[in-house]
Amino acid sequence: MTETHDRLGSGAGADMHAFASELFPINRSLTGDGVRDTLRAIQERLPDLCVHEVPSGTRAFDWEVPDEWNVKDAFIANEAGERIVDWRDHNLHLVGYSEPIDEVMELRDLQAHLHSLPEMPDVIPYVTSYYARRWGFCLTHRQREALPDGRYRVVIDATLAPGSLTYGDWVLPGESTAEILLSTYVCHPSMANNELSGPVVATQVARWLSALPRCRYTYRVVFIPETIGAIVYLSRHLAMMQERTVAGYVLTCIGDDRQYSFLPSREGNTLADRIARQVLGDLAPDHVEYSFLDRGSDERQYCAPGVDLPVASLMRTKYHEYPEYHTSADDLSLITPSGLQGGYDAVRACIRALEANRVYRSTVLGEPQLGRRGLYPTLSTRETRFIVRDLKNVWAYADGTRDTAEVADVLGLSVDRVSSIQGTLADAGLIEAVD
Amino acid sequence: MTETHDRLGSGAGADMHAFASELFPINRSLTGDGVRDTLRAIQERLPDLCVHEVPSGTRAFDWEVPDEWNVKDAFIANEAGERIVDWRDHNLHLVGYSEPIDEVMELRDLQAHLHSLPEMPDVIPYVTSYYARRWGFCLTHRQREALPDGRYRVVIDATLAPGSLTYGDWVLPGESTAEILLSTYVCHPSMANNELSGPVVATQVARWLSALPRCRYTYRVVFIPETIGAIVYLSRHLAMMQERTVAGYVLTCIGDDRQYSFLPSREGNTLADRIARQVLGDLAPDHVEYSFLDRGSDERQYCAPGVDLPVASLMRTKYHEYPEYHTSADDLSLITPSGLQGGYDAVRACIRALEANRVYRSTVLGEPQLGRRGLYPTLSTRETRFIVRDLKNVWAYADGTRDTAEVADVLGLSVDRVSSIQGTLADAGLIEAVD
Amino acid sequence: MTETHDRLGSGAGADMHAFASELFPINRSLTGDGVRDTLRAIQERLPDLCVHEVPSGTRAFDWEVPDEWNVKDAFIANEAGERIVDWRDHNLHLVGYSEPIDEVMELRDLQAHLHSLPEMPDVIPYVTSYYARRWGFCLTHRQREALPDGRYRVVIDATLAPGSLTYGDWVLPGESTAEILLSTYVCHPSMANNELSGPVVATQVARWLSALPRCRYTYRVVFIPETIGAIVYLSRHLAMMQERTVAGYVLTCIGDDRQYSFLPSREGNTLADRIARQVLGDLAPDHVEYSFLDRGSDERQYCAPGVDLPVASLMRTKYHEYPEYHTSADDLSLITPSGLQGGYDAVRACIRALEANRVYRSTVLGEPQLGRRGLYPTLSTRETRFIVRDLKNVWAYADGTRDTAEVADVLGLSVDRVSSIQGTLADAGLIEAVD
Repeated sequence: MTETHDRLGSGAGADMHAFASELFPINRSLTGDGVRDTLRAIQERLPDLCVHEVPSGTRAFDWEVPDEWNVKDAFIANEAGERIVDWRDHNLHLVGYSEPIDEVMELRDLQAHLHSLPEMPDVIPYVTSYYARRWGFCLTHRQREALPDGRYRVVIDATLAPGSLTYGDWVLPGESTAEILLSTYVCHPSMANNELSGPVVATQVARWLSALPRCRYTYRVVFIPETIGAIVYLSRHLAMMQERTVAGYVLTCIGDDRQYSFLPSREGNTLADRIARQVLGDLAPDHVEYSFLDRGSDERQYCAPGVDLPVASLMRTKYHEYPEYHTSADDLSLITPSGLQGGYDAVRACIRALEANRVYRSTVLGEPQLGRRGLYPTLSTRETRFIVRDLKNVWAYADGTRDTAEVADVLGLSVDRVSSIQGTLADAGLIEAVD
Repeated sequence: MTETHDRLGSGAGADMHAFASELFPINRSLTGDGVRDTLRAIQERLPDLCVHEVPSGTRAFDWEVPDEWNVKDAFIANEAGERIVDWRDHNLHLVGYSEPIDEVMELRDLQAHLHSLPEMPDVIPYVTSYYARRWGFCLTHRQREALPDGRYRVVIDATLAPGSLTYGDWVLPGESTAEILLSTYVCHPSMANNELSGPVVATQVARWLSALPRCRYTYRVVFIPETIGAIVYLSRHLAMMQERTVAGYVLTCIGDDRQYSFLPSREGNTLADRIARQVLGDLAPDHVEYSFLDRGSDERQYCAPGVDLPVASLMRTKYHEYPEYHTSADDLSLITPSGLQGGYDAVRACIRALEANRVYRSTVLGEPQLGRRGLYPTLSTRETRFIVRDLKNVWAYADGTRDTAEVADVLGLSVDRVSSIQGTLADAGLIEAVD
Repeated sequence: MTETHDRLGSGAGADMHAFASELFPINRSLTGDGVRDTLRAIQERLPDLCVHEVPSGTRAFDWEVPDEWNVKDAFIANEAGERIVDWRDHNLHLVGYSEPIDEVMELRDLQAHLHSLPEMPDVIPYVTSYYARRWGFCLTHRQREALPDGRYRVVIDATLAPGSLTYGDWVLPGESTAEILLSTYVCHPSMANNELSGPVVATQVARWLSALPRCRYTYRVVFIPETIGAIVYLSRHLAMMQERTVAGYVLTCIGDDRQYSFLPSREGNTLADRIARQVLGDLAPDHVEYSFLDRGSDERQYCAPGVDLPVASLMRTKYHEYPEYHTSADDLSLITPSGLQGGYDAVRACIRALEANRVYRSTVLGEPQLGRRGLYPTLSTRETRFIVRDLKNVWAYADGTRDTAEVADVLGLSVDRVSSIQGTLADAGLIEAVD
């Protein structure tokens, strides 16, 4: 295997971690230059990525694209003029979408604008206020507790004004116009598992897809701000997506090394769900399956009533389910090359399973004579049956109604194993795809 | 809350027990003046109750209305002329539908006409012989064992002759002609849980319904003799009931304080079943669910093949399942104000749930923006999601196919809670009823 | 009961064992005179059995009828000319379908043609090579280990040449052309449970059917070589069988006394499956239900995709599941009169249940008045309900959709019991069959 191929295969973890490190410092939010910088970095790896700008005020279903937010500087200084909370140190220090301010105030007045976590006194929490104008700073509870009374200067040198929302999408045509959707989000500032792991893994998956021979399905990978981005994207593409999407996954929190998780679609048994259950059942038998009631990312939009796309979520450790979630502790040490590699492998295994998933029917009535095709031992002894059990079972369920994933369910085998046997049987002319 | 309202609400138990006490001494049977007196007493509380008379001999499906039975006096006297078993002491002493007699006989001949319970030697059993002419007396086993040999005079001064069967029904029109049925029976003599609790609770529920603003559904409450009454009622109203009845409950044994019970319809998953399971799951998580195979009251007719109404049974402790059942020990001490109140509350909760049960669909594509409607905190922190989790889940299942009870099932919430959230969402214009 | 009837009833076991003993020595294989002799012996008991010959080379679906194999003699002799392995002693000594040979060779060359079981050193294994020309001998491992070096003469005086494949079928017309299929196989040499039990029980069942009054269904009993015989049979009769077959059973390994087993059809819930589950649930509650994935006999053909007949397997101890399987230890001591009787009883019980299985609907609306038909006690006491519970439940499920087996499932009663009550109800005119 060449180095290039290895970097798209089992050796992709280090590259992905390096890419996450490169993206980490950028000050992303729903809108603004942080998103643009992030998409530009992705474009360097994925030249066909299209970047789109949607003006503030644009209506999208029940929503409106908000004003664009850009920050130049932000800090709290003490009476000595020392920056004691500085956005340049960590962009989580600033509440997302804070409006500009430059004021001096007493600590007691400042307190109403401070956010910290008493139960995690050493981390900076992640707080936003997208749809109500306010300002605020986040800091460790330890630091907050130690703030001496007195007057503080508060500066937020930011613009919050009409502009545009930026997102990217990337489409790789396949043999069919039927599509597989991968969706991830690029609106979180300096946090690693939630959420640089998603765009980083999605980028790598797109590169891997590009290097494959032409796929059966068309692939659509979207890099959007969470919620409003998914709503904008759906509002522009709903009919097409409802017509073409056969399965999709939201990729989020997919870079740590603790567990594998799956959150089904609202319907719960779409192709996306069935494939993910099969693949994770094989790859990570101890994975966690959450309920749709536990959802919290863009599957909220993709599975909304009336939208009803077959979209599930693939994760390592799910948002809300790890202590570092939405704090400064969700840093580059939380995601690891092997954690990212595991997420990447799970996504690729789902894609491989989707590509392999077919409905076959037998071309013969009664069992085929396997012996003369070299598929059955010519000498029949007490052990013969074990040798060809899987092959005969896969053939027996080539009934023109069950797809590969369902046969794998019935037989208790992996989709990989069933698909490989289906290939053998199809090569021998004993089954044929009917879909 | 005014006193009137309280008596229709949480303070109804004492009133219901007093009403049961008033009805208790009346000698009810399938037909006769006892039924008429009972219906007249109900009419005092429920002026719109219609009382119907159906002549003996009238055909009803496979049955015929029997002769009418009225008793003036009945006793067994010893040689000294002392009444040792006297119907005036307890109407259970006389086998229901006993034919008239006035004879003197030896104890050994009398024995064939006596009924007692060796395993419960201190209670009088309840025995009837509606469809075969005979006569008999019931007494405690202790008394029977102590009867000295000798001659006894047996007097039953009763008429068993063409007359009519009497029943009552009460209909409260709602916005829709679709109906909710409540059915209870008025043919049992002096027993309390089985069966004065049913008519007493049904009467109170009807009074409560009368005091409500116009309901969505029309309510039909029927007070009938068991079995033959249900058959007569169905034979007169079957097509209408099949067309209109969306859910119904037999109310029986609904006044003691021991447990809550539910017996499903034959089909097992009708609206009546689903609502009762939801309501009892919330109100009395330790309630007992019986099988339709355990049925024994008028659901036998309502759920008969070809009739197939969506009717289940709501009970406190089910007939056959308590030791005092069908004996003189099923007296006014077995039912209690709080027992009747509990049954009353369960019926009302089912009605409220039925009234609230709707199929909604979202009016927006993608999640609604809750923030600008004041339904979502404008500041997003790590705790935000818990605040609006139920609201977002109720909205997400407003898919135009699931009714409130099913959404409650999926979400693990009560119908009350889901319905209340649906009200909030409908008020905000985010969902609309489609049924 | 007359002796004749007893021999077709509870006293059939000894006869069946005697018949198995008569058939045991015959050298059966896929084709040849052993099959013909076996079918002739069956014909003596079942005069209407039709025997068919299908020429070698005939195409059948994916297969071709092989050459016919007949053996006159076969042995291995030592240098002293003593027959140390002699087909006349046990026909398992010869690998099935061995080609002719007469050669002298060193032990080391002979070894490649010998088969034994190290883990069962005292039994001769059963080995065949139907579709690849070779020759071989089977012997106990103990004997093989003791063979001295030296030269051995190997003689197989056999013909393997165009001829025909032989099978038998027997059809008993019923009131309907709808058919019940019983299939068993006659290609195994001297082994008892697998497989003389099948043809012996099938023969006895056919004799029992002949002695019955005209049945509702037509019965088809086929005696074929396994696999190729079923394929040939299906290739000649597929359309007819798909049109007419309502249920069928493969009878195999049905003569030992250890357990009862059931292997469902591929679809898993056909009439054959439902009836067998009900019958075995009643007759042998501790029976084993295997998965279709464990299949290994002619249900492989009957349930093949595109064939899809409702055929399950009835067995005592299943092939592959007992240590003596496919060895000389599967002898006449493994099957017993009571073991065969048990298998016979299970098949007959399934047939009786199939004959009795009907969809009924009530002829009355509301419950029928059982009392005036003598089906209900006229005196109603606390115990009344237990007396007629089953009768009322069977009536209540006479809803025009459920068949007897489904009613039995719902009520937790045997098909026999439900069918008997349905007879009572039908005689009283209260239900009528709608199928």
